[in-house]
Parts: sequence; C-alpha cells; structure tokens
Amino acid sequence: MGVKKSDRREFLKRGAALAGSLVAARTAVGQTPDHTEHTPVAPGPDAFLRGSDEIVAYGKRSRFVTSVRIPHGGRASPDQFGLDFHIATPLQDSVGVITPSSLHYMGTTRGSFIPDIDPEKHRLMIHGMVDRPLVFTMAELKRLPSVTRMHFIECAGNRASSRHTTVQETHGMTSCAEWTGVLLSTLLKEAGVHANADWIVAEGVEEVKGASSIPMAKAMDDCLLCYGMNGEPVRPQQGFPLRLLVPGFEGIFNVKWLRRIKVVDQYYMTYNDFGHLTRDPVNAALGYQIGPKSVITHPSGGQQLPGPGFYEVSGLAWSGGGRVARVEVTTDGGRTWRDADIRGTAHPMAHTRFSFEWNWDGKECELQSRCIDELGQIQPSRAQALEFWSTPEEKATSVKGQDNSIQPWRIASDGSVHNAII
Amino acid sequence: MGVKKSDRREFLKRGAALAGSLVAARTAVGQTPDHTEHTPVAPGPDAFLRGSDEIVAYGKRSRFVTSVRIPHGGRASPDQFGLDFHIATPLQDSVGVITPSSLHYMGTTRGSFIPDIDPEKHRLMIHGMVDRPLVFTMAELKRLPSVTRMHFIECAGNRASSRHTTVQETHGMTSCAEWTGVLLSTLLKEAGVHANADWIVAEGVEEVKGASSIPMAKAMDDCLLCYGMNGEPVRPQQGFPLRLLVPGFEGIFNVKWLRRIKVVDQYYMTYNDFGHLTRDPVNAALGYQIGPKSVITHPSGGQQLPGPGFYEVSGLAWSGGGRVARVEVTTDGGRTWRDADIRGTAHPMAHTRFSFEWNWDGKECELQSRCIDELGQIQPSRAQALEFWSTPEEKATSVKGQDNSIQPWRIASDGSVHNAII
Repeated sequence: MGVKKSDRREFLKRGAALAGSLVAARTAVGQTPDHTEHTPVAPGPDAFLRGSDEIVAYGKRSRFVTSVRIPHGGRASPDQFGLDFHIATPLQDSVGVITPSSLHYMGTTRGSFIPDIDPEKHRLMIHGMVDRPLVFTMAELKRLPSVTRMHFIECAGNRASSRHTTVQETHGMTSCAEWTGVLLSTLLKEAGVHANADWIVAEGVEEVKGASSIPMAKAMDDCLLCYGMNGEPVRPQQGFPLRLLVPGFEGIFNVKWLRRIKVVDQYYMTYNDFGHLTRDPVNAALGYQIGPKSVITHPSGGQQLPGPGFYEVSGLAWSGGGRVARVEVTTDGGRTWRDADIRGTAHPMAHTRFSFEWNWDGKECELQSRCIDELGQIQPSRAQALEFWSTPEEKATSVKGQDNSIQPWRIASDGSVHNAII
Repeated sequence: MGVKKSDRREFLKRGAALAGSLVAARTAVGQTPDHTEHTPVAPGPDAFLRGSDEIVAYGKRSRFVTSVRIPHGGRASPDQFGLDFHIATPLQDSVGVITPSSLHYMGTTRGSFIPDIDPEKHRLMIHGMVDRPLVFTMAELKRLPSVTRMHFIECAGNRASSRHTTVQETHGMTSCAEWTGVLLSTLLKEAGVHANADWIVAEGVEEVKGASSIPMAKAMDDCLLCYGMNGEPVRPQQGFPLRLLVPGFEGIFNVKWLRRIKVVDQYYMTYNDFGHLTRDPVNAALGYQIGPKSVITHPSGGQQLPGPGFYEVSGLAWSGGGRVARVEVTTDGGRTWRDADIRGTAHPMAHTRFSFEWNWDGKECELQSRCIDELGQIQPSRAQALEFWSTPEEKATSVKGQDNSIQPWRIASDGSVHNAII
C-alpha cells in the first residue's frame, strides 16, 4: 500500500542528511546554476512532433528511447532459432515493476512462429473428468467474474553464467504484468470436477502442441484464464487471445493460446516436460514453484558509474512462494547485509522493486541482493546452488533445476560494472 | 492486496450458486460441446506470424485488436485542433486498472505539437526562494531515491453530456499508469526552501509556456518528478523525459516536459489558468482536487448485450481524496444500491477496478455506479451536480467545475446500451 507516512518522514530525514554527502562528493548530483536564476537552463526542444491521425490513435515511445529485447543465448537472428525461440527483457532499463508488453520476455520451444488467432473463432473447452463439459467463446469468458492481479512469469532456464555481461543476459527471462481474467476455479466448479480428478492438462493451439500437467490443488487455488494484460488484450507473443496463468510456477506452465483444459486423474508427460519435472505428484508441486530471487538492475553489468558519490541501488525481487517480505543488499561482497526499501506494493508472486541508498567511495567493491519471501525462504548463495546442482539427482538430468542464486556485480574503481560470477 | 482468502471462499460459494442461473438463462455462458470430448473445438490459427528481427526487439499487439484513442469533442483530424488538442482513452475496452501508454489520454492547450526532446540535453532547474538553486540532468535525477506508484490523471474537462454515446466520449479524459520518479520534496529539501515560500510554479518547455501554481503543502507531500511510466520512459505525449505528477489534482497541474520549478511566496496566474481556479490559497487546494468518481465501462453506451443472463458489470472508480473505499452499483436506476467488489488493490489516487455480478432479466433497466473514497466523500448525483453548477459563483465563469456526477447507462430490452443523461 505504498510508503507509510512514518516511513516517509524517516526517509526524508535521511534524505536531508544525504544532502551534505551529495555536495561533498566529487561528482555531485545537482549542480548550482552559473547563470541568472530566471533563465531556464533546459533548451527548447530540437523540434516538435506534429499531431497526426496516427499519433491521435495510438501513441509511440520517444525516438530517443531505444531499449529492445534480445535473443536469449546469443543467437543473432530468429532464422537461427530453430525450435528454441527465447527473447530476453532489457531489465537494465526497467523502472517500477511492470514490464511494458512490447518488452515482455518470450519463450517457446516450438519454433519462431506465433499463432495469428482470430478471437471470434477461438474456443476454450473444459472436459475430461467433469460432470458438464463446457465450451466458451471469448465473449462468454468476458461475461464471467474477473480478477486483476500483478504476476511475474519466469522461464525456468533464466540462469546466469560467467559468460554473461548484462542483466538482460543473466536475468532477462522474467517479466511482470497486470493480468486480468477469470479464475480457473470458477470454470472448474461450473463444470463439476470429479472427486478423484487430481490433475489438469492445459493445451495451446500451436502446431507442435504445448501442454502442461498441473496439480488440481493449484488449478483450484489461483490459476487465471487471462484475456487482459497491462490494460489491453494479451499480446500475440504472450498467448492472444487467452493465456493460462499459473502464478509462481515455472514459465512453461503458463500455457499460451489456450484452447483446452482436460481434467484427469494422473500426471501426463507432455511436450513441455524436459525431464526436469518430477512425475511424483507429492514432489512435483514444490519443484514447479519458482524460488525466492532478486537481482540489482542498476548498477548492473555493462553500465558505467560516472564517479564516486550518491547512487540509488535499484533492483527487482520475486518469489513463487508468495509476497516478497524483505530484500537485503550488500556492498562489500557479502560481509555485511542491510535491508533495502521496498518501493510500492509487494504483490504475491509479482516483481517487487527495491532500492538502497548508497554512497560510493570510488573503491572497487561488489554489490549483491538477496530476497526473503513471506514463507521465510531465503535466496541461496551461488555456492549453495552449485552444491545443490551437484546432487546425483541433478547430475542425472541434462537440464538443471531453476537457478535462483544471488547475482554479484563488481564495481571497478573506474566505475565500470561487471558480472562477478566466476 | 488482492482478494482475501475468506472473500474468495465466499465468492466461490456465490459462483457455484450462479451456475444454476447460468444454465437456466436463455443465453447461457458456456455451451456443452456437441462433439467428442477429445476433439479440441478451437480451430488451429489462421496463420502463424514468422519471427523477425522486429518481433524480437519490440512486440506488437494483435491485428485483431483495433482499440484506439479518439479526438475529444468530435474534431475529426488534428489539423482542426488549433490550440486545444485533446485525445480520449477507449475506456470501453479497458481491463484492469493500467491504461496502456499508447492509449493514455492526452490533453494540451498549446497546439497539436509535441516537443521532441533529447534527454541528454534536458535540464531541470529548481530556483526562486531557496538557499541553493540546483540544476539536474536526467542522469542525475535517476541517481536519487525513487518511488513507484499507481496514479490516475484526469482532465478537469472530463465531462459527460447527453450528446455523448460511448464511455470514451463521456469519461475518456482520465487514465492511470504506474509512475516512477523522485519525490519533489527530496529536491526541495536539497535546495532548502525559505520559510515564507508557500507556492511553486512548475513550467514545461512548450513554445507557449505551460505552467501551474501549486501549493507548497502539496509539493512537499506526494508530488513526483516522473521519468518512468508503466515500466519504461515517460512517453513524449505524456511529457518525455520528465513530467511533474501532482496526485489527485486536476490534469493541468501535471506539467509535461518539465524544465523549471520556481519556489515563490504567492499564487501566480499562469497560462494554465482558465478562470476555473481560485486565487484564494485557502480555497485553492480543495478546488484543485478531483472528487470521488466512477463509471461503468461494461456494459456502457454503444455496447450490445447478446441476451438475458449473467454478466459481470465492470467499471473504474477513483478519487483525488485518496483510496477508493467502496463502490456501489444500482441496476434499477438508483432505487436500490449494493456494494460492488473491488478487484485488486485500491491504491491512493489511482483507478480502481470494481465489478458486480448481475443476472439480467431482459427488461429495460438503468445501471449506475457511485464511488465513496477513504475520506468518506460520496460521488454526487447528476441532480446534485446541476444544482451546484447553478450557484452564482459557477454561473459567473464560462468553464464549470469538475463534473464527477454519477453516469447512468440505460439497457434497452433488445440489449442495446445507451447514455441515459437527459
């Protein structure tokens, strides 16, 4: 619910205290003007954009804003993608918690083709172990009670390595949006689920079918059939006209271009299973859930600090386990940790912006952040993650489990920022 | 903080109860499939969009999504706009609370030209009655402590009339976004405001200067210097690279392309004053604040209900006075009112989505909504607003005060929806 009045007062006291250090720093933030105070120092704009029918209908971003997504894994063009088509969000340029829909990460293992669906023709079928199989048009779905919630989606393969330079490369396969749709439980209750039906299989319309098996407990809890994203229809790359949202679960469960939900009594192995999911339903649910995670987006790899002085260290935290309860930051490579400020509302299973006031003395140092979620889960160190990945279970699979380990950024004495993963 | 567990359980009980009426209704929502349950009823997509460099970089909406803004006041083309260039948001298509940046309303009284600003060259100066006049580059502003908050902006001229057909025409001059920036109070404290400085004047870079006088109490409370909007830089039509956000105040105070804030000891009449603002600082602050307001966006004027049965009545509520505390809906023209559900988090001075479960019996009726904010302010009826506008004070000005009166929509027996303002 935003910053509390008392927090704000405390913050302002600290803000006032900062003034001295700002002025003292070699690179001060905010210069005293050296001309008459009545002359504005911002020049007039270089030009004016003339109003046009296009500008009226649908506005665009500034030509000076050039932040774009990049192919994940270093492939230069979609023609090279083959079946594995992943695009990473420019987190280094992010502010707040919403990812603009045009910059939301995208992942598919079914080629670089995006279904071009006429929503008038689209249908969702709910069938299998139910009393009343049902088919819905999009118009019918929109008549049902809806909810609006902030949720992240993260690819289980969002994994930092020492080869990466920027946060877009290390962490760009996660994004967050305001999702609107119907609770899946509303439709399942309408259909009448049989008592021994413990799973659902959700299927999209792709030529190579995408499908995921999801435990009934999750389906009945908070899964959403989304037609809205960031205030408009879900984008084609995100599943237009309908996407299944499975809050906090690995990205692959969030089936795009959703056309069918079958209620079943067992786990089904589907095209979406890479062997990193377990068939044991008792263990499965926990394996699906994204662990507590965070990353500093500024300063981050490839960025440049102009010099010593005051900076806001800013980043994102999230967890599949619920709300982010707390974020800690270290500026000395992990020797001492201090609480960061949570900016805005920490929504369950949503990116949460944190920030940390920092006066850089110009010496080489290492920044890290760690997330603690409302379940008390703590983001692990990289050493802990490496130890886990060395278990026989992990060694037996070609795809490792989710990497939610702490990301270290090294600030060199020249202000350049580097990935400090060894 | 979303729907509480207990609320959800209650909602599901009601959901289950609805099932009967859904099936009973002539136009049931969700049809039982008439083919084998193993055949998906959604056809394959008509085509696939091939991945391309452009699709990788910056995604687009579906070609089937054609929702656009329209010029306010019925002018067909920007060439006809002259100085008064206003564009309205398609609220009839809105879901959730965020307005997509491309569809955010825009208003200016300085022609249809949008400043095309290079952010590297832009400066913000804080001067006047301060100890230390300061100039900031955009890069310097981004180093300071930031906040992220959901806020609406509404034009004081967002005024429904009997001439209007759709909710875009009656209410489209309001929008809501996630704003990120520095608290103005942070900079004012840095500059050191003199004890007798009761006002600020904020100025943009337009050729015809836009400026607004704002009380110091508001400037020190929650005003934001925003560089971020919906997770990316503020759009040019919204003031790129820097906009002053004055939460809950009339739209005109939210100065775009901000270059200067002068601290002064009195109210200054500026180009932005239309005579509808009072010079008396005691009365001024309250006059500036948007009153509690709401509107049903679905069903709304120009839409068509396919037939009797269950519908979710959905709309937006907001207030300059703080959080939306409650929204009431009537389906019988105001005889009986019942509480609507708040969807998601009711943030202070932000659009808040409400919904109301409704079983339409197919008879002509009138839907209305009214907002009650956390201060206890109640959205007035149209009769109350008309009475207020008849005061000598209001009659003396050509521009009337804000219209936050209740919007009535008439549902005809054929399912067509009409503006019921007489």
